[in-house]
Amino acid sequence: MKLYEKLADEMTEAVRRGVFAAGERILSVRQASQQHGVSIKTVLHAYALLESRGIVESRPQSGYFVRDAAARALAPAAPQPGRSRAPQAAPVAAEVDVSRLVLSTLRSIRAHDAVPFGSPYPDPSLFPWRRINQYANAIARRQASWNLIDDLPPGNPELIRQIARRYAENGMPVDPGEIVITLGATEAINLSLQAVAKPGDTVAVESPTYYAMLHAIERLGMRAIEVATHPQDGIDIEALAQVIARQKIAACMVMPNFQNPLGFQMPDARKRQLVGLLAAHEIPAIENDVYQELYFGEARPSTLKTYDTKGLVLHCASFSKSLTASYRIGWALPGRYRAQVEKLKFLNTLTTPSVPQVAVADYLRQDGYDRHLRHVRKVYRQQASIMTALVQRFFPVGTRMSTPQGGYVLWVELPDSVDSMRLYQAALARSITVGPGMMFSTRNDFRHFIRLNYSYPWTAQTEAALKTLGELVKQMT
Amino acid sequence: MKLYEKLADEMTEAVRRGVFAAGERILSVRQASQQHGVSIKTVLHAYALLESRGIVESRPQSGYFVRDAAARALAPAAPQPGRSRAPQAAPVAAEVDVSRLVLSTLRSIRAHDAVPFGSPYPDPSLFPWRRINQYANAIARRQASWNLIDDLPPGNPELIRQIARRYAENGMPVDPGEIVITLGATEAINLSLQAVAKPGDTVAVESPTYYAMLHAIERLGMRAIEVATHPQDGIDIEALAQVIARQKIAACMVMPNFQNPLGFQMPDARKRQLVGLLAAHEIPAIENDVYQELYFGEARPSTLKTYDTKGLVLHCASFSKSLTASYRIGWALPGRYRAQVEKLKFLNTLTTPSVPQVAVADYLRQDGYDRHLRHVRKVYRQQASIMTALVQRFFPVGTRMSTPQGGYVLWVELPDSVDSMRLYQAALARSITVGPGMMFSTRNDFRHFIRLNYSYPWTAQTEAALKTLGELVKQMT
Repeated sequence: MKLYEKLADEMTEAVRRGVFAAGERILSVRQASQQHGVSIKTVLHAYALLESRGIVESRPQSGYFVRDAAARALAPAAPQPGRSRAPQAAPVAAEVDVSRLVLSTLRSIRAHDAVPFGSPYPDPSLFPWRRINQYANAIARRQASWNLIDDLPPGNPELIRQIARRYAENGMPVDPGEIVITLGATEAINLSLQAVAKPGDTVAVESPTYYAMLHAIERLGMRAIEVATHPQDGIDIEALAQVIARQKIAACMVMPNFQNPLGFQMPDARKRQLVGLLAAHEIPAIENDVYQELYFGEARPSTLKTYDTKGLVLHCASFSKSLTASYRIGWALPGRYRAQVEKLKFLNTLTTPSVPQVAVADYLRQDGYDRHLRHVRKVYRQQASIMTALVQRFFPVGTRMSTPQGGYVLWVELPDSVDSMRLYQAALARSITVGPGMMFSTRNDFRHFIRLNYSYPWTAQTEAALKTLGELVKQMT
Repeated sequence: MKLYEKLADEMTEAVRRGVFAAGERILSVRQASQQHGVSIKTVLHAYALLESRGIVESRPQSGYFVRDAAARALAPAAPQPGRSRAPQAAPVAAEVDVSRLVLSTLRSIRAHDAVPFGSPYPDPSLFPWRRINQYANAIARRQASWNLIDDLPPGNPELIRQIARRYAENGMPVDPGEIVITLGATEAINLSLQAVAKPGDTVAVESPTYYAMLHAIERLGMRAIEVATHPQDGIDIEALAQVIARQKIAACMVMPNFQNPLGFQMPDARKRQLVGLLAAHEIPAIENDVYQELYFGEARPSTLKTYDTKGLVLHCASFSKSLTASYRIGWALPGRYRAQVEKLKFLNTLTTPSVPQVAVADYLRQDGYDRHLRHVRKVYRQQASIMTALVQRFFPVGTRMSTPQGGYVLWVELPDSVDSMRLYQAALARSITVGPGMMFSTRNDFRHFIRLNYSYPWTAQTEAALKTLGELVKQMT
């Protein structure tokens, strides 16, 4: 093949892949000659060939452009929103690969523009998105540049102070010197686990558990042991004690407040008891407290960290559920493991983006975070009631539900015979998603459970979708 | 202790730790009562005690505020910029803990406001910071909210397309479907390594090597084997072949373009040879190409990826050296390991912040990236010449230097007798930083080497600092 043909073929392929879109200008002949290291003549030859193929057109005085017709003819078919498209095959779940199942659920929500009962994320329209972005913009205006070195781990000092301040105001005094800023709670959990345990170790988790816990364990080559968890009281402390007596446990990962998926708030006495049990065996506790601000009660609940006297609790949280998810600001309070977590943060992702850190700090200092949260809590509390009432109405006898005390998810036990993976697929074909119970365990115990997200505004469409879901369940019973 | 005393003590401690700053309002009595779960009377008691201690003052109609004097008296001393402060003890480097040494070097640059010859980062003032932030601001204006689910791995589709487009324009056609967006190249390298090797495996690296490579290996519990690397030709392919013949190598991590610290551009023929050698043994190559756009020659150099026919090259890069470091936008082209890298990204940090992704995409599509880069390349090329000339003038006989062909660092071999850790400490006491050679190896071969950053504008102060450095070296000879 001649050189100009090769170049023309590369360009054709790039248009086919959507790299160059319809109407976009491609490189000038001079630029292309320089960048590809070929002569002007070769480029002219290649572009002439592309013109004759109908891929580009030359416009006087302005250069070569991708033709609309060419892009349409060559480009991959754009995904059709929702209904008209056949659902992707859902993963067969005999052998559970939890992270694959979760990622595929998330993708199908996106691809199908479906009713997002299956989403793990809160409705972003409730977030003060524009306000926070105004702070981001103000930072750019007042700073001529930004030196990465200023926000290296542990993170931006003012953000750290604002986080400590919020804890102090919520009755949980913390040392700002303990805080390490991370990329969301996901990274905080990963780093915390890596700081306290090594590949091959066994980690105790709730059952069902929030799948990000299982992901962290999977990613780090550790093993999970699931401990029975009560829908109102949290992890069964006696059962955990038995597990500890039987085998070496490197860490315990729990979500004492508004656990995802169960929604419970572990009573204070049991939190204290859990911290005591783990401390007696010198077992670190990784506490995922991402829903801390989304309580339905009077005030922010206590945390395991509150009762920690030995520095064994690694407390992880973020603003992703309460302020903005797309800024990815999380943090860890790693107790005695602080130095390790800080170093691991440095090794893992160097630092968290600066503008989001400072914008959140400015918002916290100057804006109406409390007012915003009061509104969100009220909305979630109301929508929890609505969804609970409607599941009761639309779903068959034998359906049972959690009683969320915060957060935005409902855990639904369907009649035994219903396979939630089949339900997931049948619902997806109708552009409705659910969270299959199997995402929350490596065992097969929750095959007839689903998790439903009630953070989205309640509409006639949502109600119709829930009704459809109820009918599908009835058909499967 | 009474309840109100406990509350007052907590508040005093929070002011001491700087959680509440001078002049800031603390919670209202009603709010504090609710948040701390105590009676109004208890809060009133506590606040009265705080007033009597001089910690807070009440202002009519507006609430309680932290007194300036209290904050000054109690708060930890603010770090003094630079000169007046005794340097932190640098780590003793008998046993090299590379990541600790790097982190402490970075910290001292920040803490001392020192001349940043030791910085690994480019001068941020050359970045089009305001322009990029304007795009970020425009995104916030045109979007009412942002759904996290839209940018899940592999990342924002338009950013991916723009990256693919840039490669195509630079004569390296890539499939956009291969790209995975990460949090800087740091995460791309970590995920790539984790995708191809497991704890205990041995990974071949250049010697000296960019320390982030050693960090990734350290973090994942693998072992590094260093292969002699030529200051102009790159890794010694014959030496690598011998290593491969002797033992099992799980991966090879290299930086063929403008290697940090050596600055070489590996010749095309040797790149091809390296890819061939590794392919013959089915060994994945992790290619760190973060300086790809900072070439001093005519056009962007080729990459290992260019010669990869088996999908064994995991190509990693970012915008941190060429556009903005604080946005943390990196990516991987992981070849046949794409699915694993995408999944690991999801498990590690869920997703990269949305606004930075879209802002960079918008900048690339609409703004003068090429013009910006031409300017940066010119500045770096000039400053490389200046620093080279001045090191020749100020440093003693026996000093040798690299000849950077791109990037912004100079690698300097000092006379044998000079210990760069001692030089680092002596320079720090004069508010000058250098990159000690020991950061770039787990062996002791580079104890008399330093890395100097020439990205900052050349001033009388910089020149004086370089002169001082030369004198320190002379004293140590």
